[in-house]
Amino acid sequence: MIKQELVEISPSLICTDLCNVAEEVQQMEALGIRSLHVDLIDGHFSPSMPLGLATVAQLRKRCRMDFDVHVMATDNEFFIKELLAIGVQSITFHYEAAFHVERLLQMIKAAGCQAGIALNPATPLSVLDYVLEHCDYVLLMLISPGYAGNQGEAMVPYALRKIEECRQYIRRSGRTTRIMVDGRVSLEAIPAVVAAGADCLVAGSTSLFSRERTLAENYRQMKDKITQGLAARNFS
Amino acid sequence: MIKQELVEISPSLICTDLCNVAEEVQQMEALGIRSLHVDLIDGHFSPSMPLGLATVAQLRKRCRMDFDVHVMATDNEFFIKELLAIGVQSITFHYEAAFHVERLLQMIKAAGCQAGIALNPATPLSVLDYVLEHCDYVLLMLISPGYAGNQGEAMVPYALRKIEECRQYIRRSGRTTRIMVDGRVSLEAIPAVVAAGADCLVAGSTSLFSRERTLAENYRQMKDKITQGLAARNFS
Amino acid sequence: MIKQELVEISPSLICTDLCNVAEEVQQMEALGIRSLHVDLIDGHFSPSMPLGLATVAQLRKRCRMDFDVHVMATDNEFFIKELLAIGVQSITFHYEAAFHVERLLQMIKAAGCQAGIALNPATPLSVLDYVLEHCDYVLLMLISPGYAGNQGEAMVPYALRKIEECRQYIRRSGRTTRIMVDGRVSLEAIPAVVAAGADCLVAGSTSLFSRERTLAENYRQMKDKITQGLAARNFS
Amino acid sequence: MIKQELVEISPSLICTDLCNVAEEVQQMEALGIRSLHVDLIDGHFSPSMPLGLATVAQLRKRCRMDFDVHVMATDNEFFIKELLAIGVQSITFHYEAAFHVERLLQMIKAAGCQAGIALNPATPLSVLDYVLEHCDYVLLMLISPGYAGNQGEAMVPYALRKIEECRQYIRRSGRTTRIMVDGRVSLEAIPAVVAAGADCLVAGSTSLFSRERTLAENYRQMKDKITQGLAARNFS
Amino acid sequence: MIKQELVEISPSLICTDLCNVAEEVQQMEALGIRSLHVDLIDGHFSPSMPLGLATVAQLRKRCRMDFDVHVMATDNEFFIKELLAIGVQSITFHYEAAFHVERLLQMIKAAGCQAGIALNPATPLSVLDYVLEHCDYVLLMLISPGYAGNQGEAMVPYALRKIEECRQYIRRSGRTTRIMVDGRVSLEAIPAVVAAGADCLVAGSTSLFSRERTLAENYRQMKDKITQGLAARNFS
Amino acid sequence: MIKQELVEISPSLICTDLCNVAEEVQQMEALGIRSLHVDLIDGHFSPSMPLGLATVAQLRKRCRMDFDVHVMATDNEFFIKELLAIGVQSITFHYEAAFHVERLLQMIKAAGCQAGIALNPATPLSVLDYVLEHCDYVLLMLISPGYAGNQGEAMVPYALRKIEECRQYIRRSGRTTRIMVDGRVSLEAIPAVVAAGADCLVAGSTSLFSRERTLAENYRQMKDKITQGLAARNFS
Repeated sequence: MIKQELVEISPSLICTDLCNVAEEVQQMEALGIRSLHVDLIDGHFSPSMPLGLATVAQLRKRCRMDFDVHVMATDNEFFIKELLAIGVQSITFHYEAAFHVERLLQMIKAAGCQAGIALNPATPLSVLDYVLEHCDYVLLMLISPGYAGNQGEAMVPYALRKIEECRQYIRRSGRTTRIMVDGRVSLEAIPAVVAAGADCLVAGSTSLFSRERTLAENYRQMKDKITQGLAARNFS
Repeated sequence: MIKQELVEISPSLICTDLCNVAEEVQQMEALGIRSLHVDLIDGHFSPSMPLGLATVAQLRKRCRMDFDVHVMATDNEFFIKELLAIGVQSITFHYEAAFHVERLLQMIKAAGCQAGIALNPATPLSVLDYVLEHCDYVLLMLISPGYAGNQGEAMVPYALRKIEECRQYIRRSGRTTRIMVDGRVSLEAIPAVVAAGADCLVAGSTSLFSRERTLAENYRQMKDKITQGLAARNFS
Repeated sequence: MIKQELVEISPSLICTDLCNVAEEVQQMEALGIRSLHVDLIDGHFSPSMPLGLATVAQLRKRCRMDFDVHVMATDNEFFIKELLAIGVQSITFHYEAAFHVERLLQMIKAAGCQAGIALNPATPLSVLDYVLEHCDYVLLMLISPGYAGNQGEAMVPYALRKIEECRQYIRRSGRTTRIMVDGRVSLEAIPAVVAAGADCLVAGSTSLFSRERTLAENYRQMKDKITQGLAARNFS
Repeated sequence: MIKQELVEISPSLICTDLCNVAEEVQQMEALGIRSLHVDLIDGHFSPSMPLGLATVAQLRKRCRMDFDVHVMATDNEFFIKELLAIGVQSITFHYEAAFHVERLLQMIKAAGCQAGIALNPATPLSVLDYVLEHCDYVLLMLISPGYAGNQGEAMVPYALRKIEECRQYIRRSGRTTRIMVDGRVSLEAIPAVVAAGADCLVAGSTSLFSRERTLAENYRQMKDKITQGLAARNFS
Repeated sequence: MIKQELVEISPSLICTDLCNVAEEVQQMEALGIRSLHVDLIDGHFSPSMPLGLATVAQLRKRCRMDFDVHVMATDNEFFIKELLAIGVQSITFHYEAAFHVERLLQMIKAAGCQAGIALNPATPLSVLDYVLEHCDYVLLMLISPGYAGNQGEAMVPYALRKIEECRQYIRRSGRTTRIMVDGRVSLEAIPAVVAAGADCLVAGSTSLFSRERTLAENYRQMKDKITQGLAARNFS
Repeated sequence: MIKQELVEISPSLICTDLCNVAEEVQQMEALGIRSLHVDLIDGHFSPSMPLGLATVAQLRKRCRMDFDVHVMATDNEFFIKELLAIGVQSITFHYEAAFHVERLLQMIKAAGCQAGIALNPATPLSVLDYVLEHCDYVLLMLISPGYAGNQGEAMVPYALRKIEECRQYIRRSGRTTRIMVDGRVSLEAIPAVVAAGADCLVAGSTSLFSRERTLAENYRQMKDKITQGLAARNFS
C-alpha cells in the first residue's frame, strides 16, 4: 500500500462542475486528494480557452489543495507572473511555446514554486538536455493539448514508449524528476502507464470523472489500477 | 416608472463569486435582473484572461438570464463560433481587433444572435459609418478594456461627450441602435451617463457589486440613479 | 454608345478555367475585353489562397490584356515588389492591412504602375483623406474579401449608399479617381451600381461567368446593363 | 530493371507551363509518370507564393495522377483542411512550422491520405523521434524551401550525409518510411542521392524540366541515373 | 523676434556624430538649443533600428537638453516604460501601432511627462477625436517614418494641406495642442511649413545638419526661415 | 604565453561609455584588443533594445577592430543584410529565432563574413547536427540573452557541462569550430570556462569592465585567468 502513495492523482479542474466549484473542491479534499490540475489555455496555443485567471484566483483562497497549473499559452511570462501572484504551488509550461525557457524556469523556482516542462506528443526528449535540472516535473502530453474536448482524440500510440524512454532518460541523468502524464489516461490505461514510469496522473473524464460511477468509487478504482501498475513495474 | 425600464442593467460576471456562480446567478434572477455581462479576454487583446469558455458553457445551461458577451480577443472568429455554439444572446466585439468586421457581424446576426461593436476610448465614431446598420448595440468603453482590475483607472474625462456624440450620430443615421457603456460607471456617475444617452449599463464593483451595501440595495440605488438620469435627459 | 465605354469590365481570373488559362484569355481578348482582374490572397488576410505569383508571371508573358491586381495580403510590400517585377498595370492593396500606406502608393506610382486603395465593406471613407491624391482607383469591396466562394455571401445592404457617398467624396476633393466595385455584382445589380457611380466592375460568377449563357452573351448583357445604369445616373 | 521502380519521380507543378497545365499533365501521364508534386507556399513561410488552391482544385478534377502536396505555410491546419476537401493523395508539412504536429498527422491519416513531415536543411533528425510512425514519407529539403527560383541556391554540402543518416535512422526504428528529396536534385546528382537512400525524387528544372532535352528524353535519363544509383547502393 | 520663440527646433539625434555624442550635444546646447529629438525604431514598425535605449540612457545623464522621443515600435508599452525609467521629457507614439491609445497616454501623463500622438502621412485626423485632450503634441509625419535614410523620400505633396487642416482641427476643439512636423523639412520648406501652422520642427540632414554650412550657420538660417514663416501666417 | 593567444577576448560594446565611444574604442585598440562584441537586440527577441544600427555603422568607419555582432532579433534576415552592408567581420544569430537557418548562414558566408549560431541556455546541441559545418563559431549563452542588465542573472549552473559537451560534440564532428561564451563570465569564472573549452570570451561588467580596476588592469587579469584555464585543460 505504501507504494501506491508514490503515484499522485491530480484531478482536472475543467472536468468539475464549474457552477459550484467550491463544493466540488470540498468533495475532492474529503476524499484525500491533495492536488488540483488547472489547464490554462489562451485560445492561441490551441483553439480552446476553458478557464480564466479570476476563477483560479478566487478558488485559491477557498481551498487547501495544491494547485498544479498547466499553462498552454504563447505568452508564458504573463501567465507565470499572474500565477505566482495568485500563489499556486506548481507551474508547468510548454517547451514549444517558450523562447527563454531557462529564464521562465528561474522565475518560477525563485518564487518558491515547483516547475515543470510540458512536451507535446511529437516533441523529442532531447529538448530537456539542459533544463531537466531545474524541473520538478516533466509533463508528457499523450494527446494534442487543448483538443481533448472537441475531438475525442485517443492517447497516442507511442504513449507507453515515450513514458518509458523519458524514465530512462531521467535515470541516466541521475535525477529524480517526476513524470506527469496528461491526455485521456483512462482507468483501463492506468496500469500500463504507471508500469512504464508515470509518477503523476492528470485525472479527467475517462477516470476520476467517469459518469458511470461516483467520484469516490472512481477514485478507489484509480488507486487500485495504480497499485496494479506499480506491481508491474520492472524497475525500482 | 416606465421610463426607467428603458435602461438595462447588465451585471458583470467577473464581479460575482466565481466559486459559487450558480447561486450568485439565482440571486440576481430573483432581483429581476435579466441580462448577464460576460467579459471574455484572451490575454492578447489586453493583459488579462479572467474567464473561460467552459465556465460560460456550463453556466448557460443553469440559468435563464440573457448572456451578453463582450469579446476582447484578437481572434474574434474563434470566439464568436464558440459562443454561438454555446447559445448566448448577444455578442459584442472590438472594431479595433477585427479585420473582417462585416463578416463577423453577419455571422452573429445569421445565427439569430444580437450583435454589437465595441470601441476603445480612443476610437472615433466614424468607424461605425457602414456597420451601424448591422448593430443592435454600440459598446463604448469608458476605460481601457482589460485594465479595470489592476489599474484602478477612472472613467475617461471625455466619457460624457463621447456618449452624447454617439447618441447624436445614431440619431442622424435614423436608427435606434442602443448604447451600452462599460468601465467604472459608479452609482454617482449613473445619472449623468444616462442623461447623456446610455441605454445599457454594465454593472461592476462601483455600482451593483459595491461592498458597502447588499446586492439588492445596490440594485435599488442603481434604478433610482437611472430614474434621475432619465429625468435629466434633454432629448426624447 | 460612347458613354458605355466609361465603365470598364474587369473579369476575375479566379473564375476562368485555370487548366487552360492561355485559351481562356485569348477568348476574352477576342471579345474586346482589355483588363484582367487578379485576386492575390495569401491565406492570412482571409482564409483563401486561390492563385499564385508563378501563374501571374507566366500569364503576363502570354497575353496583351492589362493586369489589374487586387492584393489581399498582410505583407503588401512583398507582393507589390513581386508584381512590379512581373510587370502588371495596376496594383490595389487594402488600407486595413497596410501600415505605411503612403510608401506603398509611392512604390507603385514610381514604377509607372496605376495604384488603388481597396476598402473592406466596414471601412469608412475618411481613411482616404490624405491618400486619395495618389490613387487612380478606389476599390470598394461589396462583400468580405476572400469569402466569396465558400460563403455565398450577398452584396452588403449598404453597397449603393457607399458607392454614392464615395462618388461624392471624390467629387468634393476635386479629383477624378475611378471607383472599382468587387463582390457579387450580378447582372441584375449592374444598373443600380453603375448609376450610383461605379466606374469599373469586377466581373465574376454572377455576371460574365454565369453558367446560364456563353461568355459572349454574358458580356453583351453586361454592356447593356451598364448602358442602363449610365442612363439612370443623375450626375454628369 | 525492377529495382528502378523502387524510386519514384514526382515532377514539380511549378516547373510546368501553367498557362496550359491540362495539356502538360496529359503529356506527363502519357510518359507513365504517376505523381505530381505541388508546392504550396503562403508567402510567410518563405518569400514566395507560386501557386494557389484554385489551381490545384481545378487540376485535381482534370487528371489521374496522384497529387503529392508539399505545404510550406505557417497555418498548416488551414491548408490541410482545404487539400483534404480537394482530394489530394499525399500531404507533407514542415515540422518547423507546425505546433501540434501529432494532431496534423492524425487529421491527414484519418482522411485516408498519405502523410509526410518535411525538414529544412538545418533541422536535426531527432525531431522525428515520436512522429515517424505516423509518416509515410520524410521529405528532406536539400535547399532552403521557397528560395529555389530567385536564388539559384545549390544543394547543401551535407545533402548526401543527411539522406544516409536518415535512412539509417528509419532502419533503426524498424520502419519502412520512404525518403523524398527536394531541392536542385540534378541529373548528375541523382545516382549519389539514390545510392544514399532517396526513395522519391522531386523533379524540377535541373532534371525533368531541363531545357536541353525534351521531357521524354529527360525522363529516360532520370530513370537511367536512378538505375545507376540503385546499383551503387550498399544496403538492401 | 519674440514670435520666433514660438517655434521650437528639435535636432534629430540620428543626424549627429554618434561616436562623439557627448561633444555633439554640448555644441548644440552652446547654441541655445533646448530639445533633442530621439527616433526609437524597433525594426518591426519600419525596417530600421538606428538607435538603442542604452545610448539614450547614458546620454540622458550627460546633458541638460529636453529629450523628445518619437517611438516607432509595435510594442509601445515596453518602450514607454523604459523611457519613463530613463527620465525623458516627452514621448510620442504612433496611433497606427497602438492598441490601447488611451492607456498609453495616461501612463505617460501620470509620470509627469509630455505626451504626443504621431500620425503616418496617410492617417486621417479623425483618429484624434477623443485623444487630443491628452496630447501636448500631435506629430505629423511628412514622409513614411523609418524610410528617410535609405529612400531619399521627399515630403509628401499634401504636407502643407495636412498641417493646415490639423491646425484648424485643433483650433475647432478649443485646444492649444502643438503641431510637430518631421520628415525632410528642408531650409527651403520651413517658411511654408511654419506659415501653415507647425509649432515644432524636427531638424535633420536637410536643415540643421546640412553639410553645406556649419551647425551654427544652419541654426541661424533655420531661425530666419522660421521668422519668415511666422510673418506669413494668416492666423494668430 | 603562446597558448593564451588561443583564447580571444571580445569586449561588449554595451559596457563602454556610449557618449564617447570613439575614444573608448581607441583605448581598447591601444591595449591590443582586436575584436568588439556588438549586441543587437530588437525588443522582440528579448525585452531590451540597447544599441542601434546607426551607432554600429558610424563606429565601423572609425576603428580597426573586428566587429563580432550577436543578433538577437526575430527578423534575422533584415539585420544580416544591414550588417553586411555596414561591413562587419562576424555575424552570429540565434537558432531558436531563425526559420531558414541554412539560408542565413549561406548569406553571411557568401559575403565573406564569419558566421556563428547562438544557442539559448536551454537549447540542446543536436540543433547543430547539420549546420555546424557552416559555422566559424558556436555562441553558447550562459544567461538568458537580453536579460543581463536588469536581472542580475548569474551564469546557469550547467554552464561548464554545456561548454564541455559542446567541445566534445565539435571534436566528434572532426571540425575546429570555435566556442564563444557570453553571459556574466566573471574574472573568477574564466579559468574553469576556458578549461572546459571556451575559445572566445565576451567581456562585460564582471571582467573587463569591472569598476574595481582600470581597463588595462582588468585586461591583464583576464589574460592571467585565461592562462590558468589553458593550463588546466585536459585536452589538447
